[in-house]
Amino acid sequence: MAVKKTRRDLQHHEHFMSRCLQLARKGAGYVSPNPMVGSVLVVDNRIVGEGFHQRFGGPHAEVNAIACVDDEALLPRSTLYVNLEPCSHHGKTPPCSDLIIQKKIPRVVVACRDPHKKVAGKGIAKLRKAGVEVIEGILEKEALKLNEAFVKSHVKNMPFVALKLAQTLDGKIATVTGRSKWITGKEARRHVHSLRSCYDAVLTGSATVLADDPRLTVRHTMGRNPLRVVLDRTLQLPHTAKIFNGDAPTLLFTSVGSSDTMKLDLLQKNGVEVVHINEKQNGLDLEEVLSVLHAKGILSVFVEAGSRLSASLLRSMLVDKVYIYIAPKLFGGDGLDSFAPLDVHTPDKAFHFHFEAPFFFGEDILLEAYMQ
Amino acid sequence: MAVKKTRRDLQHHEHFMSRCLQLARKGAGYVSPNPMVGSVLVVDNRIVGEGFHQRFGGPHAEVNAIACVDDEALLPRSTLYVNLEPCSHHGKTPPCSDLIIQKKIPRVVVACRDPHKKVAGKGIAKLRKAGVEVIEGILEKEALKLNEAFVKSHVKNMPFVALKLAQTLDGKIATVTGRSKWITGKEARRHVHSLRSCYDAVLTGSATVLADDPRLTVRHTMGRNPLRVVLDRTLQLPHTAKIFNGDAPTLLFTSVGSSDTMKLDLLQKNGVEVVHINEKQNGLDLEEVLSVLHAKGILSVFVEAGSRLSASLLRSMLVDKVYIYIAPKLFGGDGLDSFAPLDVHTPDKAFHFHFEAPFFFGEDILLEAYMQ
Repeated sequence: MAVKKTRRDLQHHEHFMSRCLQLARKGAGYVSPNPMVGSVLVVDNRIVGEGFHQRFGGPHAEVNAIACVDDEALLPRSTLYVNLEPCSHHGKTPPCSDLIIQKKIPRVVVACRDPHKKVAGKGIAKLRKAGVEVIEGILEKEALKLNEAFVKSHVKNMPFVALKLAQTLDGKIATVTGRSKWITGKEARRHVHSLRSCYDAVLTGSATVLADDPRLTVRHTMGRNPLRVVLDRTLQLPHTAKIFNGDAPTLLFTSVGSSDTMKLDLLQKNGVEVVHINEKQNGLDLEEVLSVLHAKGILSVFVEAGSRLSASLLRSMLVDKVYIYIAPKLFGGDGLDSFAPLDVHTPDKAFHFHFEAPFFFGEDILLEAYMQ
Repeated sequence: MAVKKTRRDLQHHEHFMSRCLQLARKGAGYVSPNPMVGSVLVVDNRIVGEGFHQRFGGPHAEVNAIACVDDEALLPRSTLYVNLEPCSHHGKTPPCSDLIIQKKIPRVVVACRDPHKKVAGKGIAKLRKAGVEVIEGILEKEALKLNEAFVKSHVKNMPFVALKLAQTLDGKIATVTGRSKWITGKEARRHVHSLRSCYDAVLTGSATVLADDPRLTVRHTMGRNPLRVVLDRTLQLPHTAKIFNGDAPTLLFTSVGSSDTMKLDLLQKNGVEVVHINEKQNGLDLEEVLSVLHAKGILSVFVEAGSRLSASLLRSMLVDKVYIYIAPKLFGGDGLDSFAPLDVHTPDKAFHFHFEAPFFFGEDILLEAYMQ
């Protein structure tokens, strides 16, 4: 059957691809540094098998989808939907494109290509060469967004960086007396934990640790703890801070000049990994921090920091996205600003974002925005 | 036919009441100090007549709806829907409840009662006494919101006050160098003009006039100009400011102590009305300003001012609502705050609002919030 790309065909493909994206999301937090992938097998408009990539090192989505089809005789009549191009190389598992060819699946519908340099179109080429029909670009935008961290990591060799803030309607993160507990309600705070669990690392600075002594683990929802990353240029933080409590892997960045061996010993006894890096202007070299994290296989970094670190990341053009929870409250101009000075002189020089659709969490609103 | 309030009856009533609200809104900006009212007449599930209050002094919604029914014989079989209780007193026009009784309309469905002390349930009582069945409370919340200014004016004897701000995501209304043109895009700015045209008065302070020299008329959309109200305690504004240009009625409040007769003469020559009022702390007595406006029949005030006047109105507990347009931009902590200091020491003492559903205007988001 030849496929005409009519509006109806498109809706049909989008319907099944949506299910792939839905399945893929179930892997959030468990598959990194692999991408989130879901797959469904369709025969005569019915799903006969589905699967997703469940954990790093485990079978890919296509393998799981194929394995769950009861009657293998259906496969040569099926269409396989998958949100990312099937792989063509031997990684932890054999190439999915070979399996598709071997099972005589005649048609594959793909949302987006795999930016991984070992794949990058080769999976699709291999399928086509073997006579498999491949349709590309169905829900491509949504698929690229789902794996935005994976894509950025492979394209730019840097982690995807998201800043999270909880602020008042007038942009304040604390009152004039420095009080910030609580600005947003428990629904928004729970959502923060759920986001944390989907990111590979959570990053904070020494000022935030001194002010709030946060744990930065995932507690108010199900999910795995991200790597905790603390910037402490001068090793000023006490080794008794909660962030060093061993509840989750923890990495501390300090200056190449930090040499307090007693403090370093205490931290290492707590299981904290310490990395010494260069300074730049008034702080650690943030680009180097992110490069080190990238080299460690960290695809995504969730920043929960104060106004200075947030501003420094912005000024270094290292931010991809912001999650700003806005409480329906005003603290007034004497409150603490969400960002340190950014030296923006005219409105056209502002740091410019693009809003996504807003969500309510309890009485608070979450505005997600991408850097333009 | 007895009316059981089943879910289906309710949906039926809500359907026709929605139409009343839709019609009522067409009077926005033209009927004040009357409320916005729409009315439909329904026979056998079909609308046979509809009308709305079109301008102050003109016929009421019910009169227009009844007048547009071709066949008067339908009226004794009809149900009249109206979003506000029919009036029972002689104002500029005869009482609508008398007309309903006279036309033998057997049933009236009302969204909310009229808070006007001359009505306040008397219209409904008169109808019931004459044997008309009256159903109340259909879309009551929506109807009260539509006429929130009218309701507040009659219940509290003060105008409904809404603050409008255009700010960045980090709560800044200008850059570190004081530049604010433009923070939001033209779609948001056009919407501001449309809101202006629905309010009875637009209020600003001398700081804003000196900084921006605004006209505060309705230009980028259809609609009538509101009364322009300027607070200028010390009569420091030049009579050549655009706000005194005669394009719209203009009222200036100044201190009882202001005695620059030359300036006063020039303003009055420009057609500006000047009212002298008392001072309180560091400014004019804002409660007195609003009382004077109330006495002049102003139901609603749209505040387009700077951070100090906005903060003073908040601190005086005179604000009912805020319209905050948020641009997807960051100016940083060195930008100008949207509110002057509010002296909020702990988060639970914040000025607390309740968000409505947000809207996009171009790339900007409008957050509407009511004071709690």
